[in-house]
Amino acid sequence: MSSSDIFIGETIGTAILILLGGGVCAAVTLKASKARNAGWLAITFGWGFAVLTAVYTSAPLSGAHLNPAVTLAIAVKDGDWSNVPIYWAGQMLGAMIGAALVWVAYLGQFHAHLTDREIVGGPGAQATKAKAVEAQETGAGPVLGIFSTGPEVRNAAQNLATEIIGTVVLVLAVLTQGLNDSGKGLGTLGALVTALVVVSIGLSLGGPTGYAINPARDLGPRIVHTLLPLPNKGGSDWAYAWVPVVGPLIGGAIAAGIYNVAFA
Amino acid sequence: MSSSDIFIGETIGTAILILLGGGVCAAVTLKASKARNAGWLAITFGWGFAVLTAVYTSAPLSGAHLNPAVTLAIAVKDGDWSNVPIYWAGQMLGAMIGAALVWVAYLGQFHAHLTDREIVGGPGAQATKAKAVEAQETGAGPVLGIFSTGPEVRNAAQNLATEIIGTVVLVLAVLTQGLNDSGKGLGTLGALVTALVVVSIGLSLGGPTGYAINPARDLGPRIVHTLLPLPNKGGSDWAYAWVPVVGPLIGGAIAAGIYNVAFA
Amino acid sequence: MSSSDIFIGETIGTAILILLGGGVCAAVTLKASKARNAGWLAITFGWGFAVLTAVYTSAPLSGAHLNPAVTLAIAVKDGDWSNVPIYWAGQMLGAMIGAALVWVAYLGQFHAHLTDREIVGGPGAQATKAKAVEAQETGAGPVLGIFSTGPEVRNAAQNLATEIIGTVVLVLAVLTQGLNDSGKGLGTLGALVTALVVVSIGLSLGGPTGYAINPARDLGPRIVHTLLPLPNKGGSDWAYAWVPVVGPLIGGAIAAGIYNVAFA
Amino acid sequence: MSSSDIFIGETIGTAILILLGGGVCAAVTLKASKARNAGWLAITFGWGFAVLTAVYTSAPLSGAHLNPAVTLAIAVKDGDWSNVPIYWAGQMLGAMIGAALVWVAYLGQFHAHLTDREIVGGPGAQATKAKAVEAQETGAGPVLGIFSTGPEVRNAAQNLATEIIGTVVLVLAVLTQGLNDSGKGLGTLGALVTALVVVSIGLSLGGPTGYAINPARDLGPRIVHTLLPLPNKGGSDWAYAWVPVVGPLIGGAIAAGIYNVAFA
Repeated sequence: MSSSDIFIGETIGTAILILLGGGVCAAVTLKASKARNAGWLAITFGWGFAVLTAVYTSAPLSGAHLNPAVTLAIAVKDGDWSNVPIYWAGQMLGAMIGAALVWVAYLGQFHAHLTDREIVGGPGAQATKAKAVEAQETGAGPVLGIFSTGPEVRNAAQNLATEIIGTVVLVLAVLTQGLNDSGKGLGTLGALVTALVVVSIGLSLGGPTGYAINPARDLGPRIVHTLLPLPNKGGSDWAYAWVPVVGPLIGGAIAAGIYNVAFA
Repeated sequence: MSSSDIFIGETIGTAILILLGGGVCAAVTLKASKARNAGWLAITFGWGFAVLTAVYTSAPLSGAHLNPAVTLAIAVKDGDWSNVPIYWAGQMLGAMIGAALVWVAYLGQFHAHLTDREIVGGPGAQATKAKAVEAQETGAGPVLGIFSTGPEVRNAAQNLATEIIGTVVLVLAVLTQGLNDSGKGLGTLGALVTALVVVSIGLSLGGPTGYAINPARDLGPRIVHTLLPLPNKGGSDWAYAWVPVVGPLIGGAIAAGIYNVAFA
Repeated sequence: MSSSDIFIGETIGTAILILLGGGVCAAVTLKASKARNAGWLAITFGWGFAVLTAVYTSAPLSGAHLNPAVTLAIAVKDGDWSNVPIYWAGQMLGAMIGAALVWVAYLGQFHAHLTDREIVGGPGAQATKAKAVEAQETGAGPVLGIFSTGPEVRNAAQNLATEIIGTVVLVLAVLTQGLNDSGKGLGTLGALVTALVVVSIGLSLGGPTGYAINPARDLGPRIVHTLLPLPNKGGSDWAYAWVPVVGPLIGGAIAAGIYNVAFA
Repeated sequence: MSSSDIFIGETIGTAILILLGGGVCAAVTLKASKARNAGWLAITFGWGFAVLTAVYTSAPLSGAHLNPAVTLAIAVKDGDWSNVPIYWAGQMLGAMIGAALVWVAYLGQFHAHLTDREIVGGPGAQATKAKAVEAQETGAGPVLGIFSTGPEVRNAAQNLATEIIGTVVLVLAVLTQGLNDSGKGLGTLGALVTALVVVSIGLSLGGPTGYAINPARDLGPRIVHTLLPLPNKGGSDWAYAWVPVVGPLIGGAIAAGIYNVAFA
């Protein structure tokens, strides 16, 4: 794979991942969306099939890492760090493009939601207002949740542990793929399994922190949230931003270590 | 593939697609249906597995485009437009047959729904009545929703953008299939992935406009809605009809362009 | 395949099909079940994965028809009727065994449900009682629904049409399997696709009649419902019993005809 | 496969299985979880994809039994008992590690839940308190339910029968895998089918007892529940603990017998 194929593949793939992953959060959260309140199953399947779509589309170009923690783990496993910067650059650019595309696709919904007096203020919105204030304080308001993750119980050590555990599971499944599948066409099965593993992690380990398990998935959209001209959007909770970056990277490294000891 | 195989395959396949896709909307919407109010997950999985069933059944005959935007994209990619008219004709005919079959399969439910005083009028149905009036005005009433898509926030540029984005994702996944899969049997994997990509687009990008992402899927059933002898069916919202035709065609062309630049 | 393999395979496979298919209806319907009120998605995925489990398990022995309409369609397609009686016999026996196993697995739940004064009578159960009376009259009460299908709007011609349409879709997908898949292992993909086609038919065409689309699936359990010593179980609605037998057989024959004209 | 590969593979695989399976129960049950009250579909898909993730990850090392009943059935089928102890030891150790990891990942949620006055006591929590008392008495309280299974209607013979029936279905599907799939990559399809079979058993046969269908899945986490320093955690219901151990083992043996008679 050439450097440009890697960069283009990771950019396209991560853009699709975040467009669809952020999209399902927008679909379930925002006013004037047909999918509003579709629930946790919709979110977890939405993110899983986002992974499927993104991996399937970008695999022929870059092998579809789409996640700095996966790139790190493969570098640790193989002892080859030469392509890490180009993978990471493509992933961050793609994540930001994807988050911006969510904004484009849901422009009318963002406007309807953020200018709704029941939701962001006005008479008769006391309960919603109280919730919004609370969201501001914790930094984990619903609109930020379309872009980035946030914890339900804020405790850095605990949140870090949850992100590490989730990422170890993800990366172990990705690394063992080479032992399970091979040959043209069978990689598609690996993509499908990876997608369902992500659904699994969402259903099983997403409750506490919203399962970033991918630094680019969280950091790129958080930057876009900061930059976007959305009224009443609330803070971007930069105080928490390091957890879903550092946790997945630690998790990826641990998974690579387990792989090298137990599977290699 | 002979011209008649293409025409018959696209007609059968698109008929199955719309029968099952429109069917799930009827199942979830209509009175006296066991699936009433089954929710957005039912609709998105229903449409996705409709794609699977339709593609799997028609692929041996016509390669299963079932979507004028896919046919357009393949023509752009290959520079071969010779079969485009026959594909499009089969798709439109099939979509109309499928929509008529939804009407046959749910005849008793349509009757029960559209003659229900609580739903379409009579004392004590003020709230429902108000909603029906609103639906008439926007043209996006629930019964039309069984046949064709409509926007939650009506803004042609925004709605067009959402349809374009959704179709780009779909068509990119379809075009990269040839890079991922090959050989007898493995095409089935591609059909499965395409189906789950459609679930993904529904979950993630369906909120604003109902994700037509296929001109035949929207236009054929809209014609049938106009023709069918259903009492109290409301308007067919022809003012919106061009968006889910033009948007997906633009999206298909863009995806083919991206493919030719980045993947070919 | 020997005659005894066919008979044993169809008996085991159809028993698993009905155990799991009837089981999900029991799980969602009965009091004191952890899955109570899990909804229509649970029922449709439950039946689909019941097909997967049953087909996967019995395919090595009998090819896994598990449905008299499928056996009929294959006989029409191939012009070979020699094994039809043995397939049908195994399917009917298996369906009855499966229905009896549902009763065994949910014994405590049947007892809790059918002796609950709120559900079957006693003071304070007026609404429930009225519903039970209505269920008795239509013959489509919830406990019978664990065993057999019933229409929401009772009209023989309409119900027949719905069952025919659903079965045509199912059998077309089964017949085209041979054109899509081949070779050891790839038949598993066909089983998976068939299962998801059944989910699709359930989501999209199950609303009006509960999608029998299989004579053995409906008739075998109805016989068991008649025989079982369940208190307050209500009638077995034999007046409707011919529809889910005749409809699927007609549908199977039509699908075989379509196949022979368009695909062969 | 070497003994150490088997032991490590079963330990890692069963740890992932219980981490994800217990995790989804924690996610749906506990206060301050984003997935709270996500419902029975979330639980059944969560457990099914937990099986997929665990089998896919550990298959290259140990063949991924991850269940003493599967190991027993394979030993009965092949008449080879030499590796049974090492499989069982890895499974039990892995199950305990997995349960402990659930505790780590959901630490904040366990604390929030078990110290909530509305849930475990305090004024205004009468209804919840009554439920907690009932849960204590039946031993099937919600927090224990994150670790181990419990019956809705407590009757040892009935509960045993339900667990036997569910395990027979599971193990028959596992044993026939060798007849359906073979070769590198195709084992992945078998893992996927097994996962969906587990979803099926959950949806269809999980209602009465919570479908242990795996002695290690139930006993390992029950031991951990007994040991963990959780306040207000309630009893571990050791009176019931033999049922989900003995039932699955009987079911595995029966399935192996059916296999040897009908399929071998």
